[in-house]
Amino acid sequence: MKKSILRSKIIQIFIKHKLSRKHSEICADYLIKAELVEAKSHGLTRLKMYCDRIKKKLINPRPNIKIKKISSSISYINADNSIGFVSSDIGVSQAIKNAKKTGIGLVAIKKSGHFGLSSFYAEQAVKKNLIVFCFTNAPPALAPYGARKSLFGTNPICFGAPTGKVPFILDTSTSIINRGKIRHAHKFGKKIPYGVALNKFGQITTNAKEALKGSQLPIANFKGSGLAWMVDILSGVLTGSSHGGKTKDPFDDFSGPQNVGHLFITIDPKIFIGKKYIKEIKKNIRLVKKLPKAKGFSSILYPGERKNKLYKKNLNRDISVPKKILTEMDELNVV
Amino acid sequence: MKKSILRSKIIQIFIKHKLSRKHSEICADYLIKAELVEAKSHGLTRLKMYCDRIKKKLINPRPNIKIKKISSSISYINADNSIGFVSSDIGVSQAIKNAKKTGIGLVAIKKSGHFGLSSFYAEQAVKKNLIVFCFTNAPPALAPYGARKSLFGTNPICFGAPTGKVPFILDTSTSIINRGKIRHAHKFGKKIPYGVALNKFGQITTNAKEALKGSQLPIANFKGSGLAWMVDILSGVLTGSSHGGKTKDPFDDFSGPQNVGHLFITIDPKIFIGKKYIKEIKKNIRLVKKLPKAKGFSSILYPGERKNKLYKKNLNRDISVPKKILTEMDELNVV
Repeated sequence: MKKSILRSKIIQIFIKHKLSRKHSEICADYLIKAELVEAKSHGLTRLKMYCDRIKKKLINPRPNIKIKKISSSISYINADNSIGFVSSDIGVSQAIKNAKKTGIGLVAIKKSGHFGLSSFYAEQAVKKNLIVFCFTNAPPALAPYGARKSLFGTNPICFGAPTGKVPFILDTSTSIINRGKIRHAHKFGKKIPYGVALNKFGQITTNAKEALKGSQLPIANFKGSGLAWMVDILSGVLTGSSHGGKTKDPFDDFSGPQNVGHLFITIDPKIFIGKKYIKEIKKNIRLVKKLPKAKGFSSILYPGERKNKLYKKNLNRDISVPKKILTEMDELNVV
Repeated sequence: MKKSILRSKIIQIFIKHKLSRKHSEICADYLIKAELVEAKSHGLTRLKMYCDRIKKKLINPRPNIKIKKISSSISYINADNSIGFVSSDIGVSQAIKNAKKTGIGLVAIKKSGHFGLSSFYAEQAVKKNLIVFCFTNAPPALAPYGARKSLFGTNPICFGAPTGKVPFILDTSTSIINRGKIRHAHKFGKKIPYGVALNKFGQITTNAKEALKGSQLPIANFKGSGLAWMVDILSGVLTGSSHGGKTKDPFDDFSGPQNVGHLFITIDPKIFIGKKYIKEIKKNIRLVKKLPKAKGFSSILYPGERKNKLYKKNLNRDISVPKKILTEMDELNVV
């Protein structure tokens, strides 16, 4: 489907679900961007879920998002149960403003929801020449080290830095694979790789449905478990949002709003070494790229380069929309 | 050896190497603390290395450490090639002051050296009721994803948070095991586990010496590689220190000072939710601890608990010092 047509359709669907035009456009753009970087698990496959939650009054289509100024560097946002895209779009803008003013910005968001890919927010800060951390929590998916039941989300660690060229953007879940990929496999009847998830009895499974009911495995055992716990504290506890396994699964749990929390930290990379920063980061990347390559590698990519290539490749192409989602979209459009 | 005697001996050695009494005490306390938490790779085994570098004028025993105030939140420290312990002790104190004043602190240190365990600095901030990140770079040890040669250090990610009880302190290298453990194995003729390191030909090795000449493997392939790269940017590029594989190995490379960089970020956890923070973090930990346990686990520990238990266990015991190190200490004491 032509991107412009798809965009109009999504906007129309969100407007039918009572979002303002502006908020509908924000949501459509983030969903389409996920498709363009081929992160399908964070794209159109979630559209119905967002609409379902609006219908059930678990997402507020007309949120009164309040920004509380704590200091010139620090802001606290009450998202009023908006779609995560909307509050985070506002949140990262505020974090950018704060760092531009003072060298460092810190923005916490409470009462939000799933915000898509962390990297999209990081990218905005990096394009304004800032270093950035984005943290968000997510519904239970990972068993803490020593437990046999899920509690942490796949809690990504997202970090961005300007390079003078394509943004350096690391966006890595603390699970071996991200939950969206398992959902995607489930939706389309595919298997998941061996060794990334357990069933509810604690046994390794390649069945996506069983994995969703069981738990995913963290990277590097207690290390990944610790990193996921760190993200739960930063985005859940610190922000006054849900934490400790209380973040509701947006697909399965309709007992209340998700109350997801996000935290953005922005740093002006020129505060310490001035304009030399760009020279040094370019040198850094050059030094890594010229290393002798491992077997099977013709080049070394930094985090963010692969997604950027996909984005450019797909930018002027039509977006392929699976039949199942086309049907969903038609149904959502007659609500 | 009695702790007090050991402490006096170390102080004496550092004073003989021209450190001030105050700096000698700081260094002795960090080294002993590493022994108490049984992180032997960061303890007495490094004493000779520090002294060797002082003798070769690569560590400055009488540094003129300058703190530049960028703002009430941000400080920039020139460590003047001090031992890492000294500048980082000053650095974390400054980061604590800044966050106490403004809610958030950011301190960069350049021209420093190996600072021991990141967790010791994190602990100081947590004991002052702050959330904290500590980043430091390190000499080449890890091959970036796609390369067959080391470039990144084992670059730990260290995060701390107050819990009202034992500090939550995650201190995790981005390598599968930390380099100190390999050095320790090498020093005492032991093997390293299978699958954590490669020899210089890119083959898996359990020989510590070969591993030190080859490269260590990052956790979770490109994820760990990306996290190590992030730490290199934060502690190396941003701070104006060495980066991109240019941090000198303190044991092997006497061609110049290490120029290690450190970065501390401190956050007052009460800025968003006030006193409720402690209630919520306690709830968070309670929720995780009461999960059903995995096979072989009788309890779930949070990061920092294990080290804290070791510290308490060893606090009033004598410290066992291997003969090899006793000999080294005797030699260092007659310099």
